[in-house]
Amino acid sequence: MTSLSELGEFGLIRRIAESLPPPPPEVIVGIGDDVAVLRTSGNEYLLATCDVQVENVHFIRSAVTPFQLGRKIVAINVSDIAATGGTPLWALVSLVLPPDIETAFVDGLYGGMRLEMEKAGAAIVGGNLSRTRTDLVVDFSLLGKVSPGEILLRSGARAGDLICITGTVGDSRAGLEILLHPRLAVSEQSRDHVRARHLTPQARLQEGRVLARSGLVHAMADVSDGLVQDMRHICRASGAGAELWADELPVTQECREVSTAAGVNVFDWVLTGGEDYELLFTVAAESAHEVQKIVKDATGTGCHVIGKILDQQGVRVMFGDGTERAFPEGPTGWDHFAGMKKDS
Amino acid sequence: MTSLSELGEFGLIRRIAESLPPPPPEVIVGIGDDVAVLRTSGNEYLLATCDVQVENVHFIRSAVTPFQLGRKIVAINVSDIAATGGTPLWALVSLVLPPDIETAFVDGLYGGMRLEMEKAGAAIVGGNLSRTRTDLVVDFSLLGKVSPGEILLRSGARAGDLICITGTVGDSRAGLEILLHPRLAVSEQSRDHVRARHLTPQARLQEGRVLARSGLVHAMADVSDGLVQDMRHICRASGAGAELWADELPVTQECREVSTAAGVNVFDWVLTGGEDYELLFTVAAESAHEVQKIVKDATGTGCHVIGKILDQQGVRVMFGDGTERAFPEGPTGWDHFAGMKKDS
Repeated sequence: MTSLSELGEFGLIRRIAESLPPPPPEVIVGIGDDVAVLRTSGNEYLLATCDVQVENVHFIRSAVTPFQLGRKIVAINVSDIAATGGTPLWALVSLVLPPDIETAFVDGLYGGMRLEMEKAGAAIVGGNLSRTRTDLVVDFSLLGKVSPGEILLRSGARAGDLICITGTVGDSRAGLEILLHPRLAVSEQSRDHVRARHLTPQARLQEGRVLARSGLVHAMADVSDGLVQDMRHICRASGAGAELWADELPVTQECREVSTAAGVNVFDWVLTGGEDYELLFTVAAESAHEVQKIVKDATGTGCHVIGKILDQQGVRVMFGDGTERAFPEGPTGWDHFAGMKKDS
Repeated sequence: MTSLSELGEFGLIRRIAESLPPPPPEVIVGIGDDVAVLRTSGNEYLLATCDVQVENVHFIRSAVTPFQLGRKIVAINVSDIAATGGTPLWALVSLVLPPDIETAFVDGLYGGMRLEMEKAGAAIVGGNLSRTRTDLVVDFSLLGKVSPGEILLRSGARAGDLICITGTVGDSRAGLEILLHPRLAVSEQSRDHVRARHLTPQARLQEGRVLARSGLVHAMADVSDGLVQDMRHICRASGAGAELWADELPVTQECREVSTAAGVNVFDWVLTGGEDYELLFTVAAESAHEVQKIVKDATGTGCHVIGKILDQQGVRVMFGDGTERAFPEGPTGWDHFAGMKKDS
């Protein structure tokens, strides 16, 4: 019997996918991706994704307000839709509430969800309420749409493509460090900046739409599991590999300050921290500059070129001093089961 | 501050619905119903529903196999789609797994889901895996479709309509009694029958389609919360009331046997037990016989006439001895929060 910790989260997903019958032809992208892409009788693809926040796994109730939690659960789902170049439409919210939850908590949670849903132009249309004896769970399912001519998938990266990313990576992991170690000696400004990026991440929805409409992007994913892990998702889906250039990775001064105070190599957070919700995408080398300009002009967001797609499988990171770090198969970012105790 | 136990599950749903902005016009039915009905660019409505199974709330792990749990989570969602007259298409599965879960559990769970999904002609297209410190949660979101000319909603019941139900009610609650009190003195046959109806309920998918196509049904819902509670959902949505005839309620001999052994009035289970997953619907008095025949001929399932729709609000049950039981506002079936301890 293979244990869940041996399989890991992505091994278990593969096992599940292999156990199910082949999907019908209307399923353009099914199990294994962040977003299902579905053909309906209409002229646009339907998108469907879900993401969960579990108490004491994804958040600690004392360290987050219900309003922040509501904002975050929406943003992380909107980010999945954004990574396809799509538009969010409708959501179902499944709440599993412990006995000590009060009405004010539910009010705050929905207040946060409402704010982010309005920003995304989407509506909550249903859901479910249940109780639990123990930890709170918020499961959020989001539907969206995208034109078949514009959709961006993980697959599609080609050897020679340049790898780009919106914004900066690492702040969210630095923010988590502040929550775990509130007495860390860092400036108030850095503390506030990284904590906000962890607690209320922002989906790159406009940027995703602009990138999709540009017609220049070959493959795209959002950085939720961690830069290397999400890069690997693109590589696997595209049958390619990638080289990331450490010196080109966009890291904020605030993230660097927190990592120094924590005595951690900032690249650990940047490469494997996760929850950045930036868009990671590949373009032909000759269009990189144009894409950067298009995104900047339309949204004000900067994109950095951080590596290139290779023929050979695997993801490796090249450092400025000439050293190289390879990431072999196996969990390198957020993996729900990798840390679990081995069963028999 | 109003407590969740004062509000109750349905009060909380109303509170949430009122806190959200008015839905856009594409949302035909939104929060408050079991199924969201959504207009897309295609020629059919999109249906979206979700339902959850929480360990130690909806099931006890020692009393159910993972295969049974997988079957049930699919069936209860398919039942919601069936109650609109629609067809299930695609599902997302969100699994929140405690540390002691083994791969075999996940295999069994997906095996059960696969069986019921294949019966329903639908496919699992994605989902999410997470861990938890404590109780297992399976959240299941199901999408479907229905023709705008055929859709059946809770609203639409008219005074004078007869109220009909497929199959029988009460068995599921009797099955729960067997799980809670395994030593109850009942025959093996009754035990097996009611336990199966509790653990592996069957959605009335074919019956729902036939009823929708008949063009004769005014309003429909599935019996998940309990007969009186779901009747009340139809009445509220239709601005009407209902009278149920106790002597006409279809109850199996097996259910009666278990209720007698348990020393319970069988009507308590029949009226408020819930999880029957039968279809409850209203038709004009003159078409009741025709509808019964159509369903019987197409599916083999019997439908019973169990009451009538009234002008005045509320649900009351008339017994054969001339007595009457009124069900005032407030929880009368499964309510997640009604039993919770009052907070301050």
